[in-house]
Amino acid sequence: MKIQVVKNILDANDRMASDLRNLFNEEKIYVINLMSSPGAGKTSLVECTILALRNLYRIAVIEGDIQDTFDADRVAALGIPAVQINTGGACHMDANMVREALPALNLEAVDLLIVENVGNLVCPAEFRIGENAKIMILSTPEGSDKPAKYPLMFQESAAMIINKTDLLPYVDFDLEKARRAARGLNKDLQIFEVSCKNGKGIDQWISWLTAQIDSFRQ
Amino acid sequence: MKIQVVKNILDANDRMASDLRNLFNEEKIYVINLMSSPGAGKTSLVECTILALRNLYRIAVIEGDIQDTFDADRVAALGIPAVQINTGGACHMDANMVREALPALNLEAVDLLIVENVGNLVCPAEFRIGENAKIMILSTPEGSDKPAKYPLMFQESAAMIINKTDLLPYVDFDLEKARRAARGLNKDLQIFEVSCKNGKGIDQWISWLTAQIDSFRQ
Repeated sequence: MKIQVVKNILDANDRMASDLRNLFNEEKIYVINLMSSPGAGKTSLVECTILALRNLYRIAVIEGDIQDTFDADRVAALGIPAVQINTGGACHMDANMVREALPALNLEAVDLLIVENVGNLVCPAEFRIGENAKIMILSTPEGSDKPAKYPLMFQESAAMIINKTDLLPYVDFDLEKARRAARGLNKDLQIFEVSCKNGKGIDQWISWLTAQIDSFRQ
Repeated sequence: MKIQVVKNILDANDRMASDLRNLFNEEKIYVINLMSSPGAGKTSLVECTILALRNLYRIAVIEGDIQDTFDADRVAALGIPAVQINTGGACHMDANMVREALPALNLEAVDLLIVENVGNLVCPAEFRIGENAKIMILSTPEGSDKPAKYPLMFQESAAMIINKTDLLPYVDFDLEKARRAARGLNKDLQIFEVSCKNGKGIDQWISWLTAQIDSFRQ
């Protein structure tokens, strides 16, 4: 009975996500769904990505948080259209929340839409929101055992960004182990090692993302 | 309609949690429900706590993970009875899962039961599991803005352990801001600053916990 309820919710979400995907295709908007644990660096990566790409693409951001507007404020400070969704306690974003946010954006003037999900390594991976790609961040202080413990996120993502590499000397994080475990769950996973703090590795992430966007928009 | 379903689930969980609480009272077992983001240091704190208290109390641990038995293995290596619950994708533990785990423990030989929840700063805070106290960990790399973004966890917890203080020189974490924001949500919140890595501050956490256990068991 309980499983049935969950399945219905997910089915309804998938239908709405497909509708969103069709809309984004028509408007030629490349959409990423950015996910991670709390504090892994989602908003910092959004900021880095905006700074690297704002002269190439027209960018907009949807920020998902349980409450507050801190993240949207950080994005708006860069001169980028930002919509804040407060999920009201919900631990993930769903397609309906994204749909509700769209009237606040001028979609005709958007090439790249970044949706920053609620900080949670579990539930967001279950809900499609019309994205082209799910992108996950794993930060080095979280530890290299996370793929084994939260497998769905790694299986669903097109790319994993290992963030906070500047902390590698001070934390017990085995890069090779993390890469191997993540690829064991998802052999096609793209992996980038970056530090949003010192900028190291960001260029490789940006090159890959640019190629994805250009290939989609051709 | 959806809200109604959730409410029914939570009501049923609360009833089962009360039954568990009664059982634990009869058996004089002090129970903590340990929660945090992935990789904030729950299992490390469990290990520290076991090492400090295993000659004072008979300890048992229930480990909640989506899959795998790594954490239970770490606890069992210390000679402590450990039960692993695999939630099968669920992002939190509930009272029924704890009830299902109890037959694997000899409750008459337990003074302190530590339940390590799934790594998630959102959903676990909504589900009582018969605990005396909810204890949360916030690790310094997550950032001091977390109370504002995930308020329920801070509101529900009796104590917040700020872990990974050894990383303070390398991360942007404002201790005073975190303390003030957390106390703004929960004026009775006990706050401990610790490093499970170098042991700093663990003694204060242990003193407080010992006082709670002794007061309960009198």
